[in-house]
Order: sequence, then structure tokens, then C-alpha cells
Amino acid sequence: MTAILDDQDATNHRPVVPRLTLAQGSGGQLSDDLFISCILPRLGNRVLNDLLDSAILPGADRIALTIDSCVVQPLKFPGGDIGRLAVCGAVNDLAVCGAKPLGLALSLILSEGLERSVLEEVLDSIAATGAEAGVRVVTGDTKVIPRGLGAGLCISTAGVGAAGPPEVHPGAIRPGDLVLISGTIADHGLAVLLARDMPHLRSAVRSDVAPLNGMIHRLLDEVAGVVFLRDPSSGGLAGVVVDIAARTGLHVTLYEKDIPILPHTRHAADMLGIDPLEVANEGKVVVVVRPEAVDNVLDALRADKYGKDTQIIGVVGTEPDGVCDLRTEIGGSRILQKPYGEQLMRIG
Amino acid sequence: MTAILDDQDATNHRPVVPRLTLAQGSGGQLSDDLFISCILPRLGNRVLNDLLDSAILPGADRIALTIDSCVVQPLKFPGGDIGRLAVCGAVNDLAVCGAKPLGLALSLILSEGLERSVLEEVLDSIAATGAEAGVRVVTGDTKVIPRGLGAGLCISTAGVGAAGPPEVHPGAIRPGDLVLISGTIADHGLAVLLARDMPHLRSAVRSDVAPLNGMIHRLLDEVAGVVFLRDPSSGGLAGVVVDIAARTGLHVTLYEKDIPILPHTRHAADMLGIDPLEVANEGKVVVVVRPEAVDNVLDALRADKYGKDTQIIGVVGTEPDGVCDLRTEIGGSRILQKPYGEQLMRIG
Repeated sequence: MTAILDDQDATNHRPVVPRLTLAQGSGGQLSDDLFISCILPRLGNRVLNDLLDSAILPGADRIALTIDSCVVQPLKFPGGDIGRLAVCGAVNDLAVCGAKPLGLALSLILSEGLERSVLEEVLDSIAATGAEAGVRVVTGDTKVIPRGLGAGLCISTAGVGAAGPPEVHPGAIRPGDLVLISGTIADHGLAVLLARDMPHLRSAVRSDVAPLNGMIHRLLDEVAGVVFLRDPSSGGLAGVVVDIAARTGLHVTLYEKDIPILPHTRHAADMLGIDPLEVANEGKVVVVVRPEAVDNVLDALRADKYGKDTQIIGVVGTEPDGVCDLRTEIGGSRILQKPYGEQLMRIG
Repeated sequence: MTAILDDQDATNHRPVVPRLTLAQGSGGQLSDDLFISCILPRLGNRVLNDLLDSAILPGADRIALTIDSCVVQPLKFPGGDIGRLAVCGAVNDLAVCGAKPLGLALSLILSEGLERSVLEEVLDSIAATGAEAGVRVVTGDTKVIPRGLGAGLCISTAGVGAAGPPEVHPGAIRPGDLVLISGTIADHGLAVLLARDMPHLRSAVRSDVAPLNGMIHRLLDEVAGVVFLRDPSSGGLAGVVVDIAARTGLHVTLYEKDIPILPHTRHAADMLGIDPLEVANEGKVVVVVRPEAVDNVLDALRADKYGKDTQIIGVVGTEPDGVCDLRTEIGGSRILQKPYGEQLMRIG
């Protein structure tokens, strides 16, 4: 029995009970720890262990499955709302695994007392975003939980897709491959943070939440040499690139000056003391490509409204150190890490 | 603008805002109303409109998709827990559509402050139930929401399955078909209700929560003449049979004396003044069969530990009235209705 006592329990000498913290749901290192120490030992299997955004189901003809829950507050924020987020989360997780969406399953957990008009607006947004992405809600479940127990409205969206060739997998990444981002970073997380914590501030920061399946499938269908895709949602760009370095065991260099960021987003991040590389995006994709394919990939992405600001931001090196370094604008270099815990909470 | 004011708003003359009630998540008529008036007009499509437990995805080779959320309190109850419920809900929804599970997607919405050991127990239960059902969690998502906003632990489970022939669909039901239930009713809902509202009562009522896919697939593989299957979860046996009558437009007669119910469950229902026909089950299936197939179906179901108490409980008639009547034990008859709203809340 541990002898460590917390303040609350000091009087009656009960041991401290390990409890979950917000940071363990943030998509950072603490989330990874919870997953690796608690979930994987119990539920681990070959498919789950691969830790991709979607699972390719064993026993079916390349059917992909993903699930994403949205607990964002506020429900509506500049540039989007929880309904658009719920559709895009699932659609984009399928798309980055090369899977075209076949249908969505929608689980609504609503609080007693929620205004019906709020639910209706969210459903309208789900319908509109589904129409844009070309995917339908084919099944669902609705629960209402007692007032005071619920966060108003939580949505879990599962998506099923058909994963055609080519297979995109981090195992295919090799030295010399280039790292691209399909547009400006940090807009979603900062838009939500400002809307939640500074609701009276008038800011131009708008969430980038968007379905990327159209752009990604045109890219995969038309251009060879795309090796890997991942959407930098919770954990941000840093989370994705650090993961790429760790999984491949190769060195990745990012060039800060090439990473697109809107002036007002940078301003908001500076003001709040937040690293924009660690902020969630919901309408961007990191693409790793063979160097000889990069011009065609840039052309294909930039031809899409959601990819017009695509930039080459990094390169995979030969050093087998599994580390990502950022070459800063002022000529320095620092080792990137995944965000540790809660930087921006409840924005996904 | 409506002139109706509620007490709270009487002083400042704001109009009443329509808000959600617990009853709208109960699986009864009010749930149907919410679905039909709010969700279907916005998200409706050919597949969703079919209102089956799983959707057969268009564009794929008979791939079925379902989703089920569990918000049960308490998390652990006699006979089961939220983890077993989360797996069985999805697996059974696939099974009653004739689909063999290929994989599960697990969305965990956890509250800050939840004891880690509670999460670990739930994960252990998910793993054990998955092993029993022969299905794995292949992908997932974990969010932690702030203390005070959350119900401790909510789980949404999506399941994907391969739906082989024969197709089971209410459209195939015709006069003369027999209605079977695979065992005793009302155990799950009453076990949860007693555990939640009367935690100090010692009762023998135990939830029946169980994965039925093994039993159902053996039945479908080995015996011809099964027309339709549905698990009587929220809404209970009454909900399923009333739906069958309404969807087929045929008269269904149920015989109360033939409906299996354990003595202590009947006693608990009587004590609480609850109609056991309206209480949720999580390990039972209603099966509609051709009359010539009934002996083989009975043999197949009774050979399984989850179907040993299977009984013929009703018959589909010729009258085109879409109504279900219950022949009572004392020789009377009453028209069955779907539960209206909240009878047993948060048990699914």
C-alpha cells in the first residue's frame, strides 16, 4: 500500500486513489501513456496495435473502420460546430488511411434540458457536412442523460470506408521523403479556445474544420508517390511529425519558416503563450511523399480549396535516431516533442 | 411566439424553450417522436429510414454497421457491467441482422477524477466479453471531460459485420408465422433499476447481458425458416412486438402465460409496479419463424446456454390492423403499446 496521502485524505489516512486527469484525453504524451499502460494490455491485438487513424478490418475486403468522439465546448465556434466536427473527424480519419467513406454511424449523448433548437442546428450541420463529404448517416443511437451529469451534447461518430490501393502506411516512409502540410496550422484549436475562454474577444481566428476526403482521394487516385497521410488533430503538427520520426526510427527535420500560419492565428498563439505546432487542426493533412513526386502532389493539393496553401515543410533524414528537430526561423534548432498533456482541452 | 410560460420564466415573460427530457432517450414512443420529428427530416435516407438494428452499407459487399451508446448507472450491476453491455449491444445488433462481427470501434468518454481502477475493470470486462463473442476492438478514441460535466464513463461502441444470407427483414413476415423469445424477460432492466435506486436491497435479479451472436449464427446457418430477429433491449418485448405489428400491418397475438419470466423478476416488477413486457433485456432475442420451421428453431435455440428457455409466445394473424394484443393469463385481452417514455431510465 502506498504511503503517499493527498490533502483531502490526510485526516483519515486513506491511500491516494489514482484518478484520471483531463490531460489524459488531450492527445499528447499522457494520452499515449494511458493508452499504452491501461488500454493496450487489455484490448491489444494486431490491428489495434498498429495505431492508425482507421483500422483495416481482418476478414473483410479492405474495409476500414474508425471512431471519433466530440466533446467540444462551446458547441458552436467561429468556423464550425460540433456537428461539422463529428462528420469531419470520422471522414478525415478514413481518408488519411486511403478509405472512401461508405457510411457513418452516429451516437448522440444528450443532456436532459438541452434546447431542442440546439440539437436541430447540430443535426443540420451534420447533414450539410455529410452532403459536402458525400457520406450519409446510416444508423445511430440516441441517449438522454440526467441534467447535471452531461456536457450538453457529446457525439461519437463511427465511419466505415472502402480502402483501395495504394496502401498508405508509416512503414513505407524512407530517407529522402518530403513532409508536406496542406495549409495553415493551429486555426481550429485556437478558434475554440478563444470562443470558450474569451467569449467577448472579437477575433478573426476561425476553425479550419473541413472534410478532406475529396481532396485526398483525388490525390491518391491521380498521383503516385504518396507514402503516408495523417491529419494533425489533437496533438497538432508536432504530434504527427514526432510520431513519424518515432515509428520510422528516422530523423525528421521541419523548417519553421515554411510552416504556414495565418497572422491572426500566430498573434493569438503568441498572446496566449501557446506553441501553434501543438494546436489541433481539423481540416489539414500531413502528407509524406517521395521526392520525385512532390511537384505533382503540390499541384494536386493546391488545386483544391482545402489545399491551396500546401507547403513542403520538412524532410526525412538518414540518421536512425527517431527524432524530429525543428530548424527555427532565427537559425536555431530544437528537438520537437509531443505535447505533454492538456494544452487546449476539449477542442476535438 | 407562444404565450405559454413556465413558472420559472413567469417573472420575465420569456417564451418557453422546448428542451429535451430523459424520456426522449428511453426507447419508447417519445424516443420515436424525437427521431421522426427531429432526426429523420434532417438525416433521413433509404438506409437510415429502414430503422433496423444495423445498417447494410450501400456500395459494399453486405457490410453491416451499428452503433450503441451505454450511459448506464451504476457502472457495475448484478450480472454485468457497462463494459459487457457495450460489447453485447453492438454484437447483438449485428447478429439480429444476420451479420457476423468483424471488429468493434470503442469510444470512451471519461470524466476527470474517474478512478483508474474503475476504467481498468471496465476494460477487462470488454476484453472478456469480446473474447466470448469472438470479436476484437480494432480502433478507438478516448476523451476526458471536466469533472462535473460527465457521467463518469460513457461508452459508444460501433460494430461492423459481414451480413451473409439469409436476409432477415420485417418485410418477410406473413400471417401464420410464430413469435419466439429466447428466454426469460425483464432481468436486465430490473437488475439495473434495483442496483441504482435500491442499492441496499438484496435481490436475486441479475442482468441477462450476453453476446448472442454464437447462438444466432448457428441458428441462421443450420435452420431454414427464420424470418426476422430483434433484440428486445430498450422498449422491452412490448416495443419489439408492437413494432412488428406496425411495420407488417398485421395483427400479432401474444400469450402472456407462455412468456418466460423468473419468479424473483416477476416479484420485483410487481413490487415496483412495472410492466415486465416494457423492461429492457440485453441477452434475449425475439425470433419470427415460419410455422413449419418452429421445431427445428426451438431445438437449435434450446441447445444453446443463452437460449435454453426459448418459448413460442405468439402468432402473426391475418387481420390487417397492425395491432398487437396480449391474451392475459386470466383469459382477457389487451392492446399492447410501446412504452410511452421513461420507465426505467439509463439502463442501456
